[in-house]
Amino acid sequence: MNQNNIILGANQFGKAEVRLVKITRDTARHAIEDLNVTSQLRGDFLDAHLLGDNAHVVPTDTQKNTVYALAREGVGSPEEFLLRLGEHFTTEFSWVDGGRWAAEQYGWDRIQAHGQPHDHAFVRNGQEVRTAVVVKDGPATQLIAGLHSLTVLKSTGSGFEGFPVDKYTTLAPTDDRIMSTDVAARWRYNPAAVEGLDFNKAYDDVKALLLEGFTENYSTALQQTMFNMGRKVLEAHPEIDEIKFSMPNKHHFVVDLAPFGLDNPNEVFFAADRPYGLIEAAVLRENASDAGRAWEGIAGFC
Amino acid sequence: MNQNNIILGANQFGKAEVRLVKITRDTARHAIEDLNVTSQLRGDFLDAHLLGDNAHVVPTDTQKNTVYALAREGVGSPEEFLLRLGEHFTTEFSWVDGGRWAAEQYGWDRIQAHGQPHDHAFVRNGQEVRTAVVVKDGPATQLIAGLHSLTVLKSTGSGFEGFPVDKYTTLAPTDDRIMSTDVAARWRYNPAAVEGLDFNKAYDDVKALLLEGFTENYSTALQQTMFNMGRKVLEAHPEIDEIKFSMPNKHHFVVDLAPFGLDNPNEVFFAADRPYGLIEAAVLRENASDAGRAWEGIAGFC
Amino acid sequence: MNQNNIILGANQFGKAEVRLVKITRDTARHAIEDLNVTSQLRGDFLDAHLLGDNAHVVPTDTQKNTVYALAREGVGSPEEFLLRLGEHFTTEFSWVDGGRWAAEQYGWDRIQAHGQPHDHAFVRNGQEVRTAVVVKDGPATQLIAGLHSLTVLKSTGSGFEGFPVDKYTTLAPTDDRIMSTDVAARWRYNPAAVEGLDFNKAYDDVKALLLEGFTENYSTALQQTMFNMGRKVLEAHPEIDEIKFSMPNKHHFVVDLAPFGLDNPNEVFFAADRPYGLIEAAVLRENASDAGRAWEGIAGFC
Amino acid sequence: MNQNNIILGANQFGKAEVRLVKITRDTARHAIEDLNVTSQLRGDFLDAHLLGDNAHVVPTDTQKNTVYALAREGVGSPEEFLLRLGEHFTTEFSWVDGGRWAAEQYGWDRIQAHGQPHDHAFVRNGQEVRTAVVVKDGPATQLIAGLHSLTVLKSTGSGFEGFPVDKYTTLAPTDDRIMSTDVAARWRYNPAAVEGLDFNKAYDDVKALLLEGFTENYSTALQQTMFNMGRKVLEAHPEIDEIKFSMPNKHHFVVDLAPFGLDNPNEVFFAADRPYGLIEAAVLRENASDAGRAWEGIAGFC
Repeated sequence: MNQNNIILGANQFGKAEVRLVKITRDTARHAIEDLNVTSQLRGDFLDAHLLGDNAHVVPTDTQKNTVYALAREGVGSPEEFLLRLGEHFTTEFSWVDGGRWAAEQYGWDRIQAHGQPHDHAFVRNGQEVRTAVVVKDGPATQLIAGLHSLTVLKSTGSGFEGFPVDKYTTLAPTDDRIMSTDVAARWRYNPAAVEGLDFNKAYDDVKALLLEGFTENYSTALQQTMFNMGRKVLEAHPEIDEIKFSMPNKHHFVVDLAPFGLDNPNEVFFAADRPYGLIEAAVLRENASDAGRAWEGIAGFC
Repeated sequence: MNQNNIILGANQFGKAEVRLVKITRDTARHAIEDLNVTSQLRGDFLDAHLLGDNAHVVPTDTQKNTVYALAREGVGSPEEFLLRLGEHFTTEFSWVDGGRWAAEQYGWDRIQAHGQPHDHAFVRNGQEVRTAVVVKDGPATQLIAGLHSLTVLKSTGSGFEGFPVDKYTTLAPTDDRIMSTDVAARWRYNPAAVEGLDFNKAYDDVKALLLEGFTENYSTALQQTMFNMGRKVLEAHPEIDEIKFSMPNKHHFVVDLAPFGLDNPNEVFFAADRPYGLIEAAVLRENASDAGRAWEGIAGFC
Repeated sequence: MNQNNIILGANQFGKAEVRLVKITRDTARHAIEDLNVTSQLRGDFLDAHLLGDNAHVVPTDTQKNTVYALAREGVGSPEEFLLRLGEHFTTEFSWVDGGRWAAEQYGWDRIQAHGQPHDHAFVRNGQEVRTAVVVKDGPATQLIAGLHSLTVLKSTGSGFEGFPVDKYTTLAPTDDRIMSTDVAARWRYNPAAVEGLDFNKAYDDVKALLLEGFTENYSTALQQTMFNMGRKVLEAHPEIDEIKFSMPNKHHFVVDLAPFGLDNPNEVFFAADRPYGLIEAAVLRENASDAGRAWEGIAGFC
Repeated sequence: MNQNNIILGANQFGKAEVRLVKITRDTARHAIEDLNVTSQLRGDFLDAHLLGDNAHVVPTDTQKNTVYALAREGVGSPEEFLLRLGEHFTTEFSWVDGGRWAAEQYGWDRIQAHGQPHDHAFVRNGQEVRTAVVVKDGPATQLIAGLHSLTVLKSTGSGFEGFPVDKYTTLAPTDDRIMSTDVAARWRYNPAAVEGLDFNKAYDDVKALLLEGFTENYSTALQQTMFNMGRKVLEAHPEIDEIKFSMPNKHHFVVDLAPFGLDNPNEVFFAADRPYGLIEAAVLRENASDAGRAWEGIAGFC
C-alpha cells in the first residue's frame, strides 16, 4: 500500500450522466420521467490503483446497465430511485461499502392541444432542474434533495445600505434596486425521517416555499432573503434538518440616460454577466443530525 | 477600392448581445421585458476597411447607447423595438442604408405567493426563447419572428418505415418510437401586412399552433410532422408568407434489457446526445413575397 | 404538392455531429484525426413531407454509417473527406442531387515524455477549431474551409478615433487600447482550382497568415485589421476566391483606479463578456467565381 | 441567533468571476496575465442574515475593486495573488477571520510573425485551464493549485480485463483500446513549505509530470494510470502533500463495420459524449499535513 510513503486516499468511481427517460404507459395517458443519473462506488479498490488488479472494479458499464435494469420497475422519484441503486450495489458486492448516487431530473408538462392536455405529447418545462444525492458512507445513508437554475427577480422592494466603507469602496447605497438570482438550494433530510416520505410532494412544497420566501419583505441584502427562504422551509418541514444555498447576486445596473437628456427612474437596466455577487449559507436546526461526508464534492456550497 | 483586384464585399458591424431589462412600473403591478439585442449597420464603410478612416464608423458603443435610450420609451414587442432601431439608424446617418437588428426575448411568469400572483416578483419561464430579426436592405424591410429551444416529445404515435435500403443500412423499421425535438422555427411576415399587427398575440398563437401541430396524427417521419406544423401556421395567419424549421431528431433508444431477463415494451430509453438527426425545411405560400437577403446569416436554416 | 397554395420550399435532412476519431496505425507511430461530421441531403423529398412516404428518405442512421464506413479508407483532410461523402450520396441515390456536408476538426499534439514526442499519446491542442463545408447544389460543388475560436490579443498598437458623433455618443477616442478578438474565418476555394490541392498545407498557411496579419500595423479599427488579414490570404493563395470574417471586438476596459489613489497606464483591464462589438466582412477577388448557395446557413457571416 | 431553533450555519459571500487582464509593459516586450478571480469572505455575518444589518457586509463591489487595485502592483502567479488578497481582507476587517479566494488562469503564447515571436501580440493557448484556491479558516492558510480540461488520449497501450461479472454485466474484456480523459487535478501544498516557492515553475513541472505519467506503462484501468500520475508528482515535489484527481473515462467505441464487409482493427472510433466513466481519487503522503476545510466546495473531488 506504500510506495515512498505515498498512499491512496479517498476514492470512488462509476458511470456519470446516464440519461434515462422512463415512460409509464399502463394506460393511454402516459407519464414521463427524465433523469440524468450518476453512480459512484466506494469500498476496497486499493489493488486496482496500486497493482492494476481489477478483481474489485465493478465496471462502470455494469453500473450503467443497472440503472436501466432497475428503471424497468419504475422510478417514482429521484430520491427513491437513488436509494434503490445504493442498496443494490452495497448488497451485491461485498467490497463495496458505500458510494454516491446523484441525479438531475427535468420537468415536462403536457402539451395543450385542441382544448385539452394531451395524453402522450409533452413540452419541457425548463423552469428549474431538480437534484437528488444519496451518500452511503459505511452504515450511514444520507439523502440530499435540491434544485438549481430557478431564476427569480424582484423589480422593487430591495436595497443595499449601511455597509462598511474602506479605501476601496465606491458603491453608492440604494433603497430601490432589482434583486435577481438563480436559486440553487440543497436540503438534507433527517435520516430517521426518510422512511415513507412522499418525495415528490415534499419537493413541490419546498420549491413553492422558496419562491414565496423570495417575494417576502423588503430585502436589505440577499443574505437576509436567503435566510428567510431557508427558515420557511425548515419551519414547514420537520423532516428536513438543513438547507444550503449558493446564489449569485445577478447585477442589474440602472443605465445612465442623463447624457441623452432622459431620466431613468429604475426602468431601463443593463443585465450584467460577470462578475456577480455570490452568497452562500447553510440554515439548519440547532439539533440537526450529523451530516458526515454527505456534502463533500458538491460545488459551491460552503 | 482595389488592391491587386482584391475588394471588399458585403459587410456589416455593430454591437451584439446588448442585455436589456425593461421594467414598466406605472402602477404597483410591474411588468418585465427581458431582451438580448444585436444591432448591425450596413452602408458605405469602404474607407474604414481600406484606409483606416473611421468617419463613417458609428461606434458600436453608440449603437448600444441607442438601444438603451430608445428602450426608455418602452419596448412593446421585440419586433416593434427592432423596427424602431432600424428606422433610427437609417434615418440618422446618411451613409447607413440598411442593417440587421436581432433580439432574443426571455419569458417571465409572476411568482405565485400567498395565494396570488405577485405584483413585482417574477420567475423565468424557460420553456423557449423568442426571436426576432429585422433586415433593412436598401428600401426593403423584412421581419422574421421565431422561437427556439422549445423541447417537445411524443411517447408514442410515431414510427419510421418504408425507407430505402442500401449497403450501409442497418436501421430496423419501427411503428412505435419516441419522437422528440427542439422546435426552432422562424416565420417571415409579408412586408405589406406588418403595419398595425399585434406581434405578441401573433407570437403566442403561432407557438400554440406549433405545439398542437406536433401532437397531431401518427407521424411517419419528422419531415411530415414539421410540414404539418408549418401548414397550420400559414393557414391560420395570412400575414405570414413563409416559415422555416431546423429541428433535431433527438434519438431515444429503447434499452435492450433482454440480457438481464427483462422485457422492455418501450418503457426504458437512453436519450442520446450526438449524433442526432437534423431536419430542415421551408413551408411557404406559392405566391410568397420576395425574401431578399432576409435569411442570410441565420444558422442552420437552409 | 399544394394545400391551399401552401408548398414545400428548400429542404435538407441528415445526421448531425457524427463524432469520428480515426487512428492511423500502420506503424508504431500512430496518427490521430478527430472530427465532428454533419451530412445533409438535398433532392426530391416532397412525398415525405406531404404524404408521409419515406421511399426517398435515406435514413440519417445510414448517413452516419456511411461516415464511419468511408473513414475506414482514411480521412486525409476534412475537405477531402467531405468531398468523398458528397460524391457518394449524389451517386448512390438517384433522387439526391445535392447536399451539404460539414465538419469541425480538433487538433492534437504529441505528448512530450521522457525527452521526446510520444508515439501514441496525444494532448488536445485547443488553439482553434478547423472547419470545412462542401455544398453540392445541382451540378456545382463548392468548398469552404475555415476556422473559429482562434483568440488573439494585441496589448498595444491599436486605437479608435475620428468616428462620427451624434446625440447618443459617449465614447472617448483613444490611440492606445487592447484589441482582442476570436478569429472566425471561412474561405471559399475557386471550384476550378480544388483538384489536387494539399488542403492541410493550405490550412496551416492560411492560419499563419491570419495570425501574422493580425499583428501588422497600427490598427485604427478592427475593420482595417480584418481587411488586411483577408488581403494577405488572397494575395498568397490564388486558389482562394473569397474569405469572410465574423469577429467580435472583445472589449477590455481600463479599470479606473484613481478613486484608490493609483494610476493605471493601460496595465489593469476588465475583460467584458457582453455586449461586444461584432464586425463582419467579405474580402474577395473582383472576378471571383459565383458562390451560388454555398454561404447559406452559415451563421453570422453576412 | 435562534428562531424556532433554526440557526445560521457555515456561510461566505463575495464577488465571483472578476475577469482581470494584467499587461506588464515596462519594456516594449509586453507580458500578459489573464485571470478569473473569485473572492469570498468568512467571519461574523450573523446580523446580516437574521436582522438585515449590513454593518459587517463588505460589499462584493468593494471586493471586486480590491482585486483590481491589488493587481496594479502585479500578479506574479495566481497563488501569490490570492495569498495577497486573503491577507488583505483578513487584516483590513476585524470581523473577517477567513475566506476563500479562487482563480482560473488562461495561457497565452506569443504570435509568430515575420519569423519571430511578437512583442505585444498573443494567441490563446487553450490547452488547459490553470486553477488556484486559497482557503483561510481561522489561523490556518491552505493553498491548492491545479488544472483542468487537459484532454489526453492514448491510441493503444490500454485495456480493461479481469473485472467482476454479475447479472448486469455485458461488457467484453479488451487488451487494446483507446484511453482518453480530461485531466482535472488539484494539489495541496504543505503550508509549511509555501514560503518562497516559485509557483509558476512548480506548475509547469507538475503539468509535465502529469502528461508524462499518463503515457507510461500499459494501463489496466484509468485508476492505475491516475495513481501513477499522482505518485510521480509527489515523488518529485516534496512541498506537495496531496493531489486529487477527478477524471472522466471518455469512451471511444470501435465502430462495427462488419455489416459493410469491412474490418476495423481499432482504426475507426465513435467518440461518445454521455455517459462516461468518472474516476476520482486522492494520492497523498502518509504523514500529510491536516487539510482542514480546504477541499470543501470543490466539485467532483471526493
